[in-house]
This record gives sequence, C-alpha cells and structure tokens, in this order.
Amino acid sequence: MTEADFLAVLRTLLLHPGARGLTDDTATLAGLVVTTDTLVEGIHFLARDPPQDVAWKLLATNLSDLAAKGALVEGILLNYPIRDDAWDRAFLAGFGEALRSFDAPLIGGDTVSLPAGAPRVLTLTAFGRDAAAPSRRDAKAGDILWVTGTIGDAGAGLAIAQGAPDSPALLAAYRRPAPRLAEGRALAPHVHAMMDVSDGLLLDAQRMAAASGLAIAIDLAAVPLSDAYRAYGGTPLDAATAGDDYELLFAAAPGFAPPVPATAVGRFAHGAGLTLHESGSSVALPPKLGFQHACASPVP
Amino acid sequence: MTEADFLAVLRTLLLHPGARGLTDDTATLAGLVVTTDTLVEGIHFLARDPPQDVAWKLLATNLSDLAAKGALVEGILLNYPIRDDAWDRAFLAGFGEALRSFDAPLIGGDTVSLPAGAPRVLTLTAFGRDAAAPSRRDAKAGDILWVTGTIGDAGAGLAIAQGAPDSPALLAAYRRPAPRLAEGRALAPHVHAMMDVSDGLLLDAQRMAAASGLAIAIDLAAVPLSDAYRAYGGTPLDAATAGDDYELLFAAAPGFAPPVPATAVGRFAHGAGLTLHESGSSVALPPKLGFQHACASPVP
Repeated sequence: MTEADFLAVLRTLLLHPGARGLTDDTATLAGLVVTTDTLVEGIHFLARDPPQDVAWKLLATNLSDLAAKGALVEGILLNYPIRDDAWDRAFLAGFGEALRSFDAPLIGGDTVSLPAGAPRVLTLTAFGRDAAAPSRRDAKAGDILWVTGTIGDAGAGLAIAQGAPDSPALLAAYRRPAPRLAEGRALAPHVHAMMDVSDGLLLDAQRMAAASGLAIAIDLAAVPLSDAYRAYGGTPLDAATAGDDYELLFAAAPGFAPPVPATAVGRFAHGAGLTLHESGSSVALPPKLGFQHACASPVP
Repeated sequence: MTEADFLAVLRTLLLHPGARGLTDDTATLAGLVVTTDTLVEGIHFLARDPPQDVAWKLLATNLSDLAAKGALVEGILLNYPIRDDAWDRAFLAGFGEALRSFDAPLIGGDTVSLPAGAPRVLTLTAFGRDAAAPSRRDAKAGDILWVTGTIGDAGAGLAIAQGAPDSPALLAAYRRPAPRLAEGRALAPHVHAMMDVSDGLLLDAQRMAAASGLAIAIDLAAVPLSDAYRAYGGTPLDAATAGDDYELLFAAAPGFAPPVPATAVGRFAHGAGLTLHESGSSVALPPKLGFQHACASPVP
C-alpha cells in the first residue's frame, strides 16, 4: 500500500487531539511540537555515505520540521541499530557533533541488534518548544508561495554521491543539510502556512495547497538555484522534484517582505491542483513530483 | 559494540536533564514520561508471527515501561515500514484494536519504504502522564524483591512459535503480552524501585540492584510459574532468564503487602552482585542472565 493508503487507515484509528488528524509533519503534545523521521539505508541514505554525515542528516531532517514551526529545540530521542563497530563509533562522533551544533540534548532512545546483512533503520524523534506553529493548511487565496535558500542542491549531491562528477557544495547539501531553525523562528509569526521541503518543492507545494483547499501555480523560472547547481548543469524541473532540500516553504499575504533570504516561486488561488509555468508558458506536470514513500523507489 | 558500550558513549554527549543520565527505561519531558522501543523482524519477533500480534506486542512492550512508572497512557507515535499489502493491512487491524484496548491514542509518526527483502524494523514511542515514577535505582538494603504475575510463559511461547509442542496460553504470553498498567498505578506510590521484566528476571533484577548500588539474592524456588509453564516442563532457571515477560519487578520495604497479585522472589542487601539459591542451596549463575542486545543472538 502507498503512504497515502496507510495514512488513510491510520486516520480511522484512535487519534490524539494533538495529531491534528495526521495532516501535518508535526503533532502537539503537552505544549511541545513533536516530529519523528526514520532513515533507511539504501532508501534515504547510501551504505557508503560517511556515518558521521548520516548522523547529521538524521538530526537535521527532524529539526527541519521543528524549524517549519518556528520552534526552539527541546531535545531528541534516538532509536539505533547496533551492527558494526567502526560504523557505530563514527556515527556516534558525528551525532555528538550534531547535537552540540544544534543545541539538541539527548533525552533517551533504544538500541537494537539487526539480523546479518539487514539495512540500517534509524529513527529520531525531536521535540520543540515555544512554537508559533503555523500549519501547512492555512494558506489563503492570493498568498505568495516563498522558499528559503536554493533548491535542488541535495538532489544533485545525491547524484554525485552515486558517481556523478564531484562538487563539494552539492555533496554537502545532500549529506549535511542545514535545518532553517533561525529562519523558521523569524518567519513563523508572520506567515499563513509553512512546511519544510523534504520530498521536493513541487510535491510539498502541492501538499500545502491541498491541505489549504487551494490551487497553486508555480513559476519554474523563479525556482532559486545555487551557482554550484547551475555549474553542475541541472534543470529547474529536476531541482523542483528532487527533494531533500530542507528549505522552508511558506505562504504569506501579498506585500509581505520576508525577514530572511527567500524567493517567491508561486501563488495560491481558489480551486485545486498544481500548475506549472516558465517564463509565461505553461509547462506539463512531470510524472513524478518528488520523493514518495511507496514500496518502489529505493536509492540504488 | 555492545549496548552497554554504545550507552557509555551516548552518556558523554549532550544530555537533556530528563534523560536522567540514560539510566532508566523512561525519560521525563514536559511533565510526561517517555519511552521508546524498536522491534526487529528476526530479532524481537518472527517473520511468521501474525502481524496483528506484532502490532499488539509493539504497543504492549512500550506501555509496559509506562506501567512500571505508574503512569496513565497519554498517546503514542508509530514509525512504520510499508512493505507488503496483506501484512500491512493485518498490522493496522491489530494496531487499531490494541490502541482501543489500552486507550492509547495515536499522536503521529512516520512511514518509510524498505529495500526488497529487508527485515521490518518498527518503532513505537509512548507518552504517559500523572506518573508516580519510581526509578529502578532506589531499592534499599533489606528490601524485598517482588514480581507480578508469572515468569517464563513468553519464553516458552517463543519456543512453541519456533516449533515446540503447542500451548495456546504460552503462545499468547509471547505474542500478546499484557502491560501491567493497573498494577503499576496501584504499586507506584508505595514501592522504592520498579521496572518491567523485558529482558529476563535475573538480568533485570541485577540491573535494579546495580542501579541501586546493592546486592540482590534471588530464590529460584520462589519464581512464580504458571500451570501452563509447569505442564510445558520448563525449569525455573529457564523461566528466570527467558525475558519478554512484561511483568513488574519492584522493591519494597519488608512487611509491605502488595495491593496486587505478586510474589516475593529475592532480597536486597548491602554489597554488589547477583546470587542465586534454591531451597536453601546456592546455585551457580548461568552464562546468560537474559536477552541482551548485542550483535549476536537473533531469533532463528
């Protein structure tokens, strides 16, 4: 079954009020914002990725969800499969560094062993406090869709990790994403809706529009690309569907001037669905808008 | 590295005050008790175990940790690997039933895909409120060690699941353990230390004694065995080292009369270490006191 099918069944089970109908990347509990993400070897990271970077990314991907709520980091839980001495020690070194970098104290967790040859499955749960907590569902018709930073760097970094010509900046974007915690704090009180770009700009924008009951039109020509990405030769469409960006995507009223670097990439309107255009011409939707958690598309 | 080695390194990282030095099965956060457990196919459950029962056990093992704190269930998070339609749907059916049984509402979670053939790795995180929260470290010299229910049933149930002659009661103890939530609520205000028996009576008693800076002597003849376990023909030593019992183990002052069914199985004293005796004679410690999360001993 697809993630959407699975979620549809989960929504029929006993739900906590803080689950908000399982429509958001975070839940609320005892005044905290809660998020949890699992990374699977061979799906979300490569077996040959440096363990220090896997540790960093595991933490960063979760903190990115807190950033989208404008929250401060309260602490984290780690569920870790012990398997290989050298890998485990390198992971711990990177993990300790990442905890200090983001001032994210460890609250607890669990360790397990794995059958021989099983891919690693790592789970991290992060708690944030003092959140302004914009949801992804309150964009208004006429709102401008903005995104922080640049898009597509991590997708190109993944291609490089898989053997494409090297670019340290792009590889770092894939392996060591920076959760936009400070940007989230600055934006949260002023925006109508916000989420992080984890699965791809188009897919996540479509989700925000659907959650808000609106249509969204995106201008591919406006998608912000880094110099490194341009030098690498990627297209805006590739960038907008790659995912793993961990930038913040937010909806704000026309005339809003973001207090942090951000680029306007689209506009919400009454209606439903995602449309694309580029320099005034309409563009057909690609078959794949981003990374979806089906049972199919593992990283090779 | 072993679980103990891994924890030793974790303790040197940035810790949250609620982590309590990572010495307990639960942490505290915003007035809540938090626990998280991961179950791995081939390690903690068998690929041929019914998915409904895996769902039940995933929830029950976590709620057992809340029971040991005398907490009420606030809610849970689920991290789930989507892989096989029939298995996923059966899991969801059992999961929904278990949530209702324990009045444990779903707060959120994450779904992932797995590479082909990878064993399932499931994580559940449970939050409890209104806990009296006895730790495992405050047993006193002279305290009596008690245990609720009977011990060894789940270990025998695992052997049955692996092909030993059938006993529905023992198989159910392995597949559908009952977290002692009501018992934990009744005991928590009165005991000095409490934890659940997840890895084996001897191993967990040794951990409680070590955490409390005491020695513990256990009478194998006192270990409570069910009629089904006796009929199955298991020994008290097998029962006390099998694990997966999810009974409550607690230390209380001499003269304490437990308000729930429980059996006195040992006594704490000044000193250190675990000793065994049976009907007045000392018994050598077995090489394996319970289930330890090394990289070695998967369920076949």
